[in-house]
Amino acid sequence: MTLQVWMSGIQERTEAALVRHLPAADKTPFRLHDAMRYAALGGGKRVRPLLCHAAGAIFGAPSEMLDTCACAIELIHVYSLVHDDLPAMDNDVLRRGKPTVHIEFDEATALLVGDALQSRAFELLATPFAGIPAERQLEMTALLAAAAGSVGMAGGQAIDLESVGKSLSVPELEFMHMLKTGALIRAAVLLGALAGGASGAEVEALTRFANRAGLLFQVVDDILDATADTATLGKTAGKDAAADKPTYVTLLGLKPARELANTLHGDALTALTPFGDRAIRLRELSDYILGRTF
Amino acid sequence: MTLQVWMSGIQERTEAALVRHLPAADKTPFRLHDAMRYAALGGGKRVRPLLCHAAGAIFGAPSEMLDTCACAIELIHVYSLVHDDLPAMDNDVLRRGKPTVHIEFDEATALLVGDALQSRAFELLATPFAGIPAERQLEMTALLAAAAGSVGMAGGQAIDLESVGKSLSVPELEFMHMLKTGALIRAAVLLGALAGGASGAEVEALTRFANRAGLLFQVVDDILDATADTATLGKTAGKDAAADKPTYVTLLGLKPARELANTLHGDALTALTPFGDRAIRLRELSDYILGRTF
Repeated sequence: MTLQVWMSGIQERTEAALVRHLPAADKTPFRLHDAMRYAALGGGKRVRPLLCHAAGAIFGAPSEMLDTCACAIELIHVYSLVHDDLPAMDNDVLRRGKPTVHIEFDEATALLVGDALQSRAFELLATPFAGIPAERQLEMTALLAAAAGSVGMAGGQAIDLESVGKSLSVPELEFMHMLKTGALIRAAVLLGALAGGASGAEVEALTRFANRAGLLFQVVDDILDATADTATLGKTAGKDAAADKPTYVTLLGLKPARELANTLHGDALTALTPFGDRAIRLRELSDYILGRTF
Repeated sequence: MTLQVWMSGIQERTEAALVRHLPAADKTPFRLHDAMRYAALGGGKRVRPLLCHAAGAIFGAPSEMLDTCACAIELIHVYSLVHDDLPAMDNDVLRRGKPTVHIEFDEATALLVGDALQSRAFELLATPFAGIPAERQLEMTALLAAAAGSVGMAGGQAIDLESVGKSLSVPELEFMHMLKTGALIRAAVLLGALAGGASGAEVEALTRFANRAGLLFQVVDDILDATADTATLGKTAGKDAAADKPTYVTLLGLKPARELANTLHGDALTALTPFGDRAIRLRELSDYILGRTF
């Protein structure tokens, strides 16, 4: 199966799992549920679900459990986008080619959509799943919660806010991204691995992979923000530069940013060596992430 | 031990548990952690922690586990207050006698404080606790997540928003409150009970209690909003009426609202009958909640 076919399959599975696991729009409170579905369905590259399934595939994790993990992670990701787009944060009007939630609905609803999507993610992950020991599931739930919180994604957002208009060093920028996008990408890979019963050493190797792949993803995002147009991205292009936010491109320049992407890609592949052929999808996804820039 | 002494003890334990379980203010990101501690520490009646400990006491649940449960529930409650006070929602400047988080810090920080407090609550509850089977802890985590989400607290907020300026019926108002405040109060009681190994039938009886007690709490809140002053409440008084929000007092009038409070109090006590003397603290807390109105 080619990567493209495999990716389409996972994206479809993820969409179906989200449709299944989000509250129905005809269930009270209608408007909130409608807005939750608007935010989460029918868009997005589903990068985190892809990474989760690719990591799970190494260990033969049950696909249904991976769907649940992928769904929980994507709900956390989507909630962060909804809150990030609010006027108090990035004040953005376009996301995944559609008006953002607070534009399509209203600010208060967007706030509650984010809040309720976060709760739903943990509810999903804490619902007993046949064939997975409860201890493992508890560990996975705590892992996702830590990745989402103040020393993970939300903490990265806070550092990002503080850094507007400041000159960050490259290590400071890296630290910010390790939290802001890295934590959830790492969680995606590790939940997939844990769903398949990965050992401590295997989790460690995949953490090294995920740290490099996460940073790669961010560097590529910065390159795209500087070079692609809004129609291609499906979100407002050039907004980091416009907001005076430090990026790898503003700090390093375009060519060195592309070289850094290459190095990170190489390091990510090296971390996968112990898994041999079983890590083929993770390897292909790394190539795919790198390929978006060129 | 008198109720007052017992309550002070639980309030102190809860404060200490929050101090312990919140990220330190000298840990990056400083400002976010500082704001999380500002939001959660040094205030509040800690009603939910009190209910959690009182329910746990029926079954001799380990106090340390109850501290963790109480802490997780209180973090969810505090996050909801922080988001509720934002300009996009209630736009309030005073909470627990102090400036609200977005006034003391800024809106974006308040948004992230709420988000990160929610994650922290689930991280806490999903961290393995000696002596509690993982299956039980997973059940407790899913229960809290459901109580916080779109068919619980966040859903209640959404209905509350939609009801501004509308004339609700008493059953509609009751449904809104069952979600908005009732879901978390129910979760507080049930987490305490589950931490002590309560059976299905016992959980059912306590659900009946919690549903009545939760509504009682809300009716009393409405009465206080209409009758007490801002200094006494530590939050803006009369704001529901000012915001044209339906309350038990605006719908029923003050005297019938007080009669309803009495009825709910009686029903709550009846639901505790099977537990005899072991439910003394829950019984006393019900009296205390009722007593706030007179």
